[in-house]
Amino acid sequence: MTTIFGNPGSTELTFLEDFPEDFRYVLALQEASALGMATGYAQGTGNAALVNLHTAPGLGNAMGALVTAWHNRTPLVVTAGQQDRRHINLEPLLTGRLVELARPYAKRSYEPRRPQEVPSEILRAYHTAMQPPRGPVFVSVPMDDWNAECETPPSHEVSHRVAPDPAAIERAAEVLRGAHSPAIVVGPGVARSRSFDEVVALAERIKAPVWQEGIVALAGFPQGHPLFMGFLPLAQKGVSETLAPHDAVLVLGSAVFPYYPYVPGEVVREGTEVVQITDDPEEAARAPLGRSIFGDVALAAAALAELLPEADRPALPAREEPPEPEAAAPMSVDYVMWQIARALPEDAVVADESTSSKVVLHRYVKTNDPVGYHTSAAGGLGFCMPASVGLKLAMPERPVVCVIGDGSAMYSIQSLWTAARNGLAIPTIVINNRGYTILKSYRNALGISDSVPGLDVPGIDLVQVARGLGADGEAVERPEDLEGALGRALEAEGPYLVDVAVDTSVPKFAR
Amino acid sequence: MTTIFGNPGSTELTFLEDFPEDFRYVLALQEASALGMATGYAQGTGNAALVNLHTAPGLGNAMGALVTAWHNRTPLVVTAGQQDRRHINLEPLLTGRLVELARPYAKRSYEPRRPQEVPSEILRAYHTAMQPPRGPVFVSVPMDDWNAECETPPSHEVSHRVAPDPAAIERAAEVLRGAHSPAIVVGPGVARSRSFDEVVALAERIKAPVWQEGIVALAGFPQGHPLFMGFLPLAQKGVSETLAPHDAVLVLGSAVFPYYPYVPGEVVREGTEVVQITDDPEEAARAPLGRSIFGDVALAAAALAELLPEADRPALPAREEPPEPEAAAPMSVDYVMWQIARALPEDAVVADESTSSKVVLHRYVKTNDPVGYHTSAAGGLGFCMPASVGLKLAMPERPVVCVIGDGSAMYSIQSLWTAARNGLAIPTIVINNRGYTILKSYRNALGISDSVPGLDVPGIDLVQVARGLGADGEAVERPEDLEGALGRALEAEGPYLVDVAVDTSVPKFAR
Amino acid sequence: MTTIFGNPGSTELTFLEDFPEDFRYVLALQEASALGMATGYAQGTGNAALVNLHTAPGLGNAMGALVTAWHNRTPLVVTAGQQDRRHINLEPLLTGRLVELARPYAKRSYEPRRPQEVPSEILRAYHTAMQPPRGPVFVSVPMDDWNAECETPPSHEVSHRVAPDPAAIERAAEVLRGAHSPAIVVGPGVARSRSFDEVVALAERIKAPVWQEGIVALAGFPQGHPLFMGFLPLAQKGVSETLAPHDAVLVLGSAVFPYYPYVPGEVVREGTEVVQITDDPEEAARAPLGRSIFGDVALAAAALAELLPEADRPALPAREEPPEPEAAAPMSVDYVMWQIARALPEDAVVADESTSSKVVLHRYVKTNDPVGYHTSAAGGLGFCMPASVGLKLAMPERPVVCVIGDGSAMYSIQSLWTAARNGLAIPTIVINNRGYTILKSYRNALGISDSVPGLDVPGIDLVQVARGLGADGEAVERPEDLEGALGRALEAEGPYLVDVAVDTSVPKFAR
Amino acid sequence: MTTIFGNPGSTELTFLEDFPEDFRYVLALQEASALGMATGYAQGTGNAALVNLHTAPGLGNAMGALVTAWHNRTPLVVTAGQQDRRHINLEPLLTGRLVELARPYAKRSYEPRRPQEVPSEILRAYHTAMQPPRGPVFVSVPMDDWNAECETPPSHEVSHRVAPDPAAIERAAEVLRGAHSPAIVVGPGVARSRSFDEVVALAERIKAPVWQEGIVALAGFPQGHPLFMGFLPLAQKGVSETLAPHDAVLVLGSAVFPYYPYVPGEVVREGTEVVQITDDPEEAARAPLGRSIFGDVALAAAALAELLPEADRPALPAREEPPEPEAAAPMSVDYVMWQIARALPEDAVVADESTSSKVVLHRYVKTNDPVGYHTSAAGGLGFCMPASVGLKLAMPERPVVCVIGDGSAMYSIQSLWTAARNGLAIPTIVINNRGYTILKSYRNALGISDSVPGLDVPGIDLVQVARGLGADGEAVERPEDLEGALGRALEAEGPYLVDVAVDTSVPKFAR
Repeated sequence: MTTIFGNPGSTELTFLEDFPEDFRYVLALQEASALGMATGYAQGTGNAALVNLHTAPGLGNAMGALVTAWHNRTPLVVTAGQQDRRHINLEPLLTGRLVELARPYAKRSYEPRRPQEVPSEILRAYHTAMQPPRGPVFVSVPMDDWNAECETPPSHEVSHRVAPDPAAIERAAEVLRGAHSPAIVVGPGVARSRSFDEVVALAERIKAPVWQEGIVALAGFPQGHPLFMGFLPLAQKGVSETLAPHDAVLVLGSAVFPYYPYVPGEVVREGTEVVQITDDPEEAARAPLGRSIFGDVALAAAALAELLPEADRPALPAREEPPEPEAAAPMSVDYVMWQIARALPEDAVVADESTSSKVVLHRYVKTNDPVGYHTSAAGGLGFCMPASVGLKLAMPERPVVCVIGDGSAMYSIQSLWTAARNGLAIPTIVINNRGYTILKSYRNALGISDSVPGLDVPGIDLVQVARGLGADGEAVERPEDLEGALGRALEAEGPYLVDVAVDTSVPKFAR
Repeated sequence: MTTIFGNPGSTELTFLEDFPEDFRYVLALQEASALGMATGYAQGTGNAALVNLHTAPGLGNAMGALVTAWHNRTPLVVTAGQQDRRHINLEPLLTGRLVELARPYAKRSYEPRRPQEVPSEILRAYHTAMQPPRGPVFVSVPMDDWNAECETPPSHEVSHRVAPDPAAIERAAEVLRGAHSPAIVVGPGVARSRSFDEVVALAERIKAPVWQEGIVALAGFPQGHPLFMGFLPLAQKGVSETLAPHDAVLVLGSAVFPYYPYVPGEVVREGTEVVQITDDPEEAARAPLGRSIFGDVALAAAALAELLPEADRPALPAREEPPEPEAAAPMSVDYVMWQIARALPEDAVVADESTSSKVVLHRYVKTNDPVGYHTSAAGGLGFCMPASVGLKLAMPERPVVCVIGDGSAMYSIQSLWTAARNGLAIPTIVINNRGYTILKSYRNALGISDSVPGLDVPGIDLVQVARGLGADGEAVERPEDLEGALGRALEAEGPYLVDVAVDTSVPKFAR
Repeated sequence: MTTIFGNPGSTELTFLEDFPEDFRYVLALQEASALGMATGYAQGTGNAALVNLHTAPGLGNAMGALVTAWHNRTPLVVTAGQQDRRHINLEPLLTGRLVELARPYAKRSYEPRRPQEVPSEILRAYHTAMQPPRGPVFVSVPMDDWNAECETPPSHEVSHRVAPDPAAIERAAEVLRGAHSPAIVVGPGVARSRSFDEVVALAERIKAPVWQEGIVALAGFPQGHPLFMGFLPLAQKGVSETLAPHDAVLVLGSAVFPYYPYVPGEVVREGTEVVQITDDPEEAARAPLGRSIFGDVALAAAALAELLPEADRPALPAREEPPEPEAAAPMSVDYVMWQIARALPEDAVVADESTSSKVVLHRYVKTNDPVGYHTSAAGGLGFCMPASVGLKLAMPERPVVCVIGDGSAMYSIQSLWTAARNGLAIPTIVINNRGYTILKSYRNALGISDSVPGLDVPGIDLVQVARGLGADGEAVERPEDLEGALGRALEAEGPYLVDVAVDTSVPKFAR
Repeated sequence: MTTIFGNPGSTELTFLEDFPEDFRYVLALQEASALGMATGYAQGTGNAALVNLHTAPGLGNAMGALVTAWHNRTPLVVTAGQQDRRHINLEPLLTGRLVELARPYAKRSYEPRRPQEVPSEILRAYHTAMQPPRGPVFVSVPMDDWNAECETPPSHEVSHRVAPDPAAIERAAEVLRGAHSPAIVVGPGVARSRSFDEVVALAERIKAPVWQEGIVALAGFPQGHPLFMGFLPLAQKGVSETLAPHDAVLVLGSAVFPYYPYVPGEVVREGTEVVQITDDPEEAARAPLGRSIFGDVALAAAALAELLPEADRPALPAREEPPEPEAAAPMSVDYVMWQIARALPEDAVVADESTSSKVVLHRYVKTNDPVGYHTSAAGGLGFCMPASVGLKLAMPERPVVCVIGDGSAMYSIQSLWTAARNGLAIPTIVINNRGYTILKSYRNALGISDSVPGLDVPGIDLVQVARGLGADGEAVERPEDLEGALGRALEAEGPYLVDVAVDTSVPKFAR
């Protein structure tokens, strides 16, 4: 943890004093950006990232990003400076209820009782963050603690992986052995176990079609693989209808199931057996039916593959590729995503916050490795722009691309400055429909009239804002200009925002 | 509460459905801005404001602003949409730990147990927010609740003011009657009682010099009044030295005392009697000495004045006015503030987040009414830019001016768009020193070397950012251009950002 | 606070070291008793009491009693010893989540961040406990803190009373001036303001009939006064029917209204004006209708009386006294209560936990001063037996009598030992019906069959248990033996338990 | 879960309505007893037990017992009745902050948002309680929810065991392979994995001496086994000295290490390698050094044994048995424990709360199976008397014996009644030294004078109390009467309390 993300204040100065020369401090202009960048960095490195914030207002600004890190199960050590212990009983300015503030979305939230506890507490925070289910941990440090003498804690290694109960895996294998038509549903837990290999091997062994659950915080399967069937809907009715042909469903690294709108239905067709493997015991405990097993997904997939015979089923018919979209003006989202897919290098990493356009993005842009795709599992906005900064810092050798809506872009627009100051080449493609179009879709799905205020966001010149923050960019309105703009964005040596105006039609909400 | 601030998401659509035509929805591009605008509005109207946020990530983004509202004791009713009750046990996307999230900085945080509770809970939230000590209240509303049938709750009036205990006031009067050289320290509680008259009458009656405590979230006394002595320092040593000549100190609407850095000393010189009147019982309970009374400050001041004889003390010598600052290039902060003071109309309302320049601002810019000056009592950044939006909406007839640092400006820059879209004439003066200069001052005061990273913020073109968000503006580098720019800002029909480059010298931290 | 109640453990030894000779330590055998005794003591003295418990299990045992103290708004300073700061990061035995544990039912719950904070924190706890609404405050003290050097905090007086807003009182007076038939409802807030005089004077001035709300944690009016009408029912329907003849209701020191079973109805008849004065701002904020004013009840009553003209209404007809009950065997509860009423001295203080017999107790036993009657406002059991110990210690000169059910007696039976060891003359009358009869009444009211298990409690010989704990006592089965037994109990020099077998008929639940 | 422990109130009547005939309701007279009995039952059956309490005061009374269940990692589903949803916004009597109250000591604490959630929430509570680390879960149920219609949730199996990471086990094996003199420390996690076999096999394979950590909530090794070395001390200094001869220590199912008093020292001698296997990830994360692995202890031990070669070390010398204690009057604790050990049948289950006498108990009374010994891991009192009731109900075929101090006996003395009413043969041996002798030992160890009040508990006649509660018993003062009394206790058909007066000498605190 030698890269520290942060936005400082007076209570953090003692922490930052004598900052080691081989450490890197990545400054953000707002705390939501700092925490989002750390989240991206942790997801890119697979290791807990450290972020330092400024007492209660600073931690407060970052709480939305913390909610997202929590749902993304991203390991983070979040610290904030607390007022000086020596007069905190008088509640001077910057005294914060820090532990209470972070608690609802931290695996552990603590303020050491003595300065001498600080080092061991930070080490503990690291291990707690890394244990499954991974997540953020918070440590509040009174500013005078950094001046106290204390001993370096001894080294301590903690295993950050657990294996599923072998007896439960045997029972799961039994279910799958008895199935005529098993399917697999993958979720972000596959990527968190950092390997597609075991899951691919298992799917190929039992010749099961594979769906990705619909939130797709991280990809769980190579999306170009012949067994990959696409994405599940986001409501009970749609999920159970999609899975209806199968008499057994193996859920790997996902809830049973991630839903969004309430559209009543069955969880699965009656009689379908469900086996869930998850890296979160609560996700197991709350599954509505079936058999749930807590453990590392890759270990579980490998153990299952060993217990299951090679299936003798015909190959699935190849998935039909969508036709090439028309190059009309104003551009359709399909056209833009198709162009993006064409422009992206093989090893691109996509940070996606295109919201209303996400379904279309997945139609064209395929992910084939566990760190190739990132979005928020919490459903809030403002994550992917700073996350792309962290991802790029974590994987400087890979192209990191941010695809984002115009509304979404404004929540953590401040992170563009950090990208610019650090010379991070991050193409940022804004799918600009001048509004919160996902909400219009949802509104229509709920049967609500268009009386709802606050869904239009006209009058923002994102390229100008980006330039004001030290980034570069251009606006595109005509289809013939898009390919060139994307090329320039991918070639740029710093952040480059392409503001793509698309038609403002409201897509049907896919549920 | 017919003006609603917010940033919507799918869980809020049912709330916004059939939005009343005589209501106003003020859209913000990020939740920190939404809550900050509501805070400004509540401070401008003196009444609780309503703000609607989007489940956990949205409420999370606003938590820093909620911390500020809490410390400013601003009455707010904050609501957020929760997932649909009918499937929330499966924890679908957007399910939030909302009540827990808001609790540390809300007077009450609640999710109704039945849809039918929603109206009475919102009414209760209003009354709780308005009772002293005022503050924010949070209500989580499952999105399907708005579709349920329920009765309108009957009207309910609640007294939002309390009077001090007459017996305690009598004892306080006794202390003051016995004092030879009493002083008065005023804090934001004076402005919250909405009247300077009683405090001025009392000060004039006992002929006591009046200091404002050093945080100055709100002004507590007409700063042009002959009895006004200026601002207390922010550490024990300085405060007790300043008050040392007085054998009795009457603290009105303030803690005893608001501190910031830890510089040990006495609270007051030994033997000095302290009497505190405050609108916050906890502020009374934790005062380190003296006599503390909970109650409305204006009522208390009036009651005290009645019990005290007119004092027979010579008038204070007139405060020396600072000399006219030099018009050098780069400009000094003194020069800029002097020009601002000259430009401001009599009835201007200042939202101040100039941080390192705040002491200089107070040197020239005088406040003479309870709603004329606003800053954050929490010490975090990002409040004053959205607050100025709320203040302008609350007081369209008065000039509302935002004076802000360049670092500060970036925390809630999104609020410029709301100002622009609503045609709000808000001159926004950025005192631009390309860094977090307050931290450099503080660092020097702590004796920390300049090894601390993250204190410089170069490379932002704020005028360009403002234009990208639909506002107007200009940059000023030469002293001779400033007056004209300020004039244009004050004449503009929308938000107008003047980016004033000042010299980057690090002021001595005044403690 | 020189009397300390407690049950010690190893983490409290440092606190108890060098215990001052002029302090009194009252040992309880279980923590629920310790806290209950402190509650009684605080209610008897009108001042906050101090209770010291043993880390998490000890505080845990007392949490039920803390819930009761909370609802009784009893000022308490509760402390518990925490593990030694020097190794608490390893979570040794007796490390407790003390602050979190107490928080839901403490006005403030805190663990000092340094040993030097302990004295000022305890002083703050005292003031917070005493401010309205009064209640318990918790302080966790790491055991090594008592060995640290620290300065004595300076003296600090805090006003513990607030006055109602004069403008609101004027509006309330207007309502009452316009009423043709006003009624008064009194609650425990009257007794907490420690004076019946102002309320009696007001009632007599406006010649309004006075009801006590139905929970009766404390009495609010002299029950022998000609204007006293008795007790309100405990459900909406009954309350609104009782108050239906009145066009205005003044509620003093009570919620609007305290309910228990859900029996839908109006709050008051439509058109009836309600004015509430309460010492709890939340009770004001949540009142379902009317005008609510937060402030001291006695001050408010006096202020109202000054604003209201003497009413010209005929005197109320005298309340009919219940006939002398029959002396049958098994005895009826009426008979027993009638005998108790006859036996009690004028100045007796009654601690009542007779639950199913409470309505009958009030039929015969009248309270005429603010500290003459005590029960739990929380509805749980186990309060009154230890509370009577605290009450007797607070008011050694007055007879303190505990009237309790047989089921109730078993929750804090341990307190009999403390009474015995301290030689406290506490007659304890058990109304023994061998079961949880209140639940049988409630069950019948809900229309539930008698299939419910766990409602009979046979086979306890309470006199033997009392003797085993060092108390004395006797059992009474025949009516002719009761008077003598009560006499012996009242004459005894220590605790004396009279176990009175009553008939086991199930009374109709009065709602 | 067909046995339900509880103490009912009106908010639980709807839950208990139509109580199934094949269910068993075990009534307790106080909630601390109810929860303690459930804890014993869960520990006896190895399955989560269900306990139903009465809203906030009832849950509150049980919080101390909940703290103990938490530290004992006992799976419990705790429910309490909440007020009726239909008027809870008016906060009627018995409205509780139930979720907040239970939260600090529950793995999950929840109140369903709709009646229809109740069944699935209770199922989820069961699974959460059973997952490692096991522990209590709380569900608040509004009383009217039981009357709502809802569907039976489908069946859902959850694996309640996790395996250690194979890679981490391989690294642990490497450490042990390199050790010359490994030792094993066992803790309660061994018994929670419900098998001594794997641990014994491993110890025998590597010929390592085995210590039990000093808290001994549950036994971790057959105490008669030749490799068993006894019990570790309870402070850093003693533990590191005891383990100093070993270059590697394998900790199975324990913290590293459980401490009680603060006596500074090393954790282990420098250079000693520590490997920890634990069923609690937090216990792993906070270990101060070494390598920590989260996973089932029995699975880990078996995996390690497979990876390790059979060691070639000489057998340990046989442990010296203590000499037969002298039969003096007053009796020594040694004598009493020696007699108890002689009297106990081979398959006896001991519930121990002898506190100051615990070290002596372990000197004579050996446990040889995972459910043979139980005490509190939380350090509070009042657990073992109700726990013995639960243990007996769980294992009616085994003799369950309670060994307890006289002070300890008074915390949950109410449970004797439940034992008596249910005809449970529970010999209860009170080691009576008329005081809190453990505190006197601790006081002496801390060098505190005997000024501490509250350590003597004279004047209780426990046999009389027991008889009053329907149990039987006798007091023993002379050594020659003890054997007979113990025999009668073991032969009795119900609870039988033997009150054994021992000498009041204060043992040296063993640390």
